Amino acid sequence: MQAVGLITEYNPLHNGHRYHLQRAKQLTGADCVVVVMSGNWLQRGEPAILDKWTRSKLALENGADLVVELPVFYATQPAHLFAEGGIRLLSALGCTSVVFGAEHPDLDFKRLTAEIEGHQDAFSHYNATYATQFNAALKAATGVTLTAANDMLSFCYYTANQALAHPMQLYPIQRQQADHATPTITTGKAYASGTAIRQAAFAQDWPAIAPVVPSDTLTALKSQRLQRWRDFWPLLHYQLLTVDVAHSGQYDQMAEGLEYRMQAMAQQATDFDNFMHLVKSKRYTYTRLQRVATAALLQLTQQEVQAAQAAPYLRLLGFTPKGQAYLHQVKKQLPLPLYTKINQDLRQHALNLDYRAGRVYELINGQSQDLYRRPWRMPAISVDQPELS
Amino acid sequence: MQAVGLITEYNPLHNGHRYHLQRAKQLTGADCVVVVMSGNWLQRGEPAILDKWTRSKLALENGADLVVELPVFYATQPAHLFAEGGIRLLSALGCTSVVFGAEHPDLDFKRLTAEIEGHQDAFSHYNATYATQFNAALKAATGVTLTAANDMLSFCYYTANQALAHPMQLYPIQRQQADHATPTITTGKAYASGTAIRQAAFAQDWPAIAPVVPSDTLTALKSQRLQRWRDFWPLLHYQLLTVDVAHSGQYDQMAEGLEYRMQAMAQQATDFDNFMHLVKSKRYTYTRLQRVATAALLQLTQQEVQAAQAAPYLRLLGFTPKGQAYLHQVKKQLPLPLYTKINQDLRQHALNLDYRAGRVYELINGQSQDLYRRPWRMPAISVDQPELS
Repeated sequence: MQAVGLITEYNPLHNGHRYHLQRAKQLTGADCVVVVMSGNWLQRGEPAILDKWTRSKLALENGADLVVELPVFYATQPAHLFAEGGIRLLSALGCTSVVFGAEHPDLDFKRLTAEIEGHQDAFSHYNATYATQFNAALKAATGVTLTAANDMLSFCYYTANQALAHPMQLYPIQRQQADHATPTITTGKAYASGTAIRQAAFAQDWPAIAPVVPSDTLTALKSQRLQRWRDFWPLLHYQLLTVDVAHSGQYDQMAEGLEYRMQAMAQQATDFDNFMHLVKSKRYTYTRLQRVATAALLQLTQQEVQAAQAAPYLRLLGFTPKGQAYLHQVKKQLPLPLYTKINQDLRQHALNLDYRAGRVYELINGQSQDLYRRPWRMPAISVDQPELS
Repeated sequence: MQAVGLITEYNPLHNGHRYHLQRAKQLTGADCVVVVMSGNWLQRGEPAILDKWTRSKLALENGADLVVELPVFYATQPAHLFAEGGIRLLSALGCTSVVFGAEHPDLDFKRLTAEIEGHQDAFSHYNATYATQFNAALKAATGVTLTAANDMLSFCYYTANQALAHPMQLYPIQRQQADHATPTITTGKAYASGTAIRQAAFAQDWPAIAPVVPSDTLTALKSQRLQRWRDFWPLLHYQLLTVDVAHSGQYDQMAEGLEYRMQAMAQQATDFDNFMHLVKSKRYTYTRLQRVATAALLQLTQQEVQAAQAAPYLRLLGFTPKGQAYLHQVKKQLPLPLYTKINQDLRQHALNLDYRAGRVYELINGQSQDLYRRPWRMPAISVDQPELS
């Protein structure tokens, strides 16, 4: 059995994601689709609208065979670390190929990666202007600028993949909607952005959502508690009002002096959006600030995030019969520990950051995220579902 | 003008407190009644039912002439440090006498203090069994055991007073109800315990409360938001779920290893009462655990509390014309800084712990506790109020 890998967030899973799952199989001829999915906290530094269990079940219902969690210390990181985490886990699971969407899949990412390789050191450590520095170096070396989010992420996948002892085969494909952040759902279309779908979900505009998501997603959105930053604001607010500034300065991705600004603005802010507006300056992107806010909320320090990145693992969220067979095939030669269930020891040690991230999410969501949870075991998927083009 | 001092909490102000205010003046013949009152967090490690502004106004309406705040780094401490703070502030304000309630005012506190003096070192630093060690030493030296809370506190006042360069005159008086913690209001009586009154207030049993509190207190209880621990539980819960155990070990009054127990129990607890029940053991009193919970909620570390205790101040909450005249008389020779208004600098430095404590209280109470607040300036009190016996 051969496996193709996908790196995902599914916030929430929509028709574009289903297309991605189907296309990945067609394109590679793989037998099994392995999905690495962010847990409850995402790359843009925000809580997932639906929890990781609901989202992983949707993935299994829509074409995935095996879903593992991208740990919080990778999932809430800038593009190059997010990509590194995803590629590392897919490689560990023995995938031979990876399929991902890009705005411009025809770009010669492999060449760009090779040409910029010597310049990586200048910006390989995270700092406030990573994307800017990266693009300056890329432009100097190749004349190309990557402005679209998924082109940039694709480049990061290539870079991370090249660092592997045995690189996988990478397949960038065309994303089904041009703009990741298009804020509305267009009538008559089968695809819409995650941003547009989330906005409609919070407005309970189910008729608008129905055409652009699988029916399971619609059901989940209608029946589950939906999370967003504003739900966690009272906790973040309290935290920023009480934490010692020497301690908040150690939070992951905190820039020099930003802790003072965040704590000062927390004194005035009335809600999360207002807080972000007050903290925002030219120096920091909105996404960066949300990631720092996530680190503050979860009290993730740079030190513990870096230590955790040095010891990743595979946390199983669910599988189909095919995924189970594939896992059986590879599990004896897995280079990383595989966890299927949280016990006392794992909670306090190996998985402590994911456990903490889950407990905070749980304070709003109300559903246990780690304790007592077992991976989904899905029945074989029915084959008569319509294909998306 | 001569001033008598009182050390209070007024949680909330009831007829027993009015009696105390009147009796203090009669007993000492003082012109002015100076009150040091805990702010929003109290000696038993809990939030005040009404905020410090409401409670200080009630004090001024019922016999106090000048009210200053006992800072949080004294107010939420064990008896000997609470007493030390109160005595220190009253002495700084030039009071010549202090009147306080005791269960057994006829005890020869002065002699007990003198006899135990040589033994103080053995237990003068805070630890888990302070009261026990203290009583063992007292019994060994004098044959007396102090079991009642206010007898113990009275002893602490004597000890703190003796440490002053110019001790004040101390007057222990009989408390108007024998048991501080009597849980019910007895029909036909003018006095009830604070515990009983708070319980009735949360049950909105106004007819039961009316006979045992001044009318202003009844109005305040009926019209203001009433706070208790359960309101702050979501914040404490979140904090204990996310804080690093190495950091929580530094919280004020945390005993060796207790931080592990508290964080473990926070994983299971369903509400504040349940949390306390889970954490409670023979080793720690309920009050001690509440004080540690307060330190955790406010993120007060032992280091910052001790640093703050070395630099106390007088924070003015309000005054009558007589209090103002008295303040005018003493203010040139005050040995401690007097603050009447919080500005940016005070908030970040001198008053930072009180400011933080106020901001957390404010998250539930909704009323600014420090910014934009000025001391109450009360008109002269009418003299035709009935005397209590």
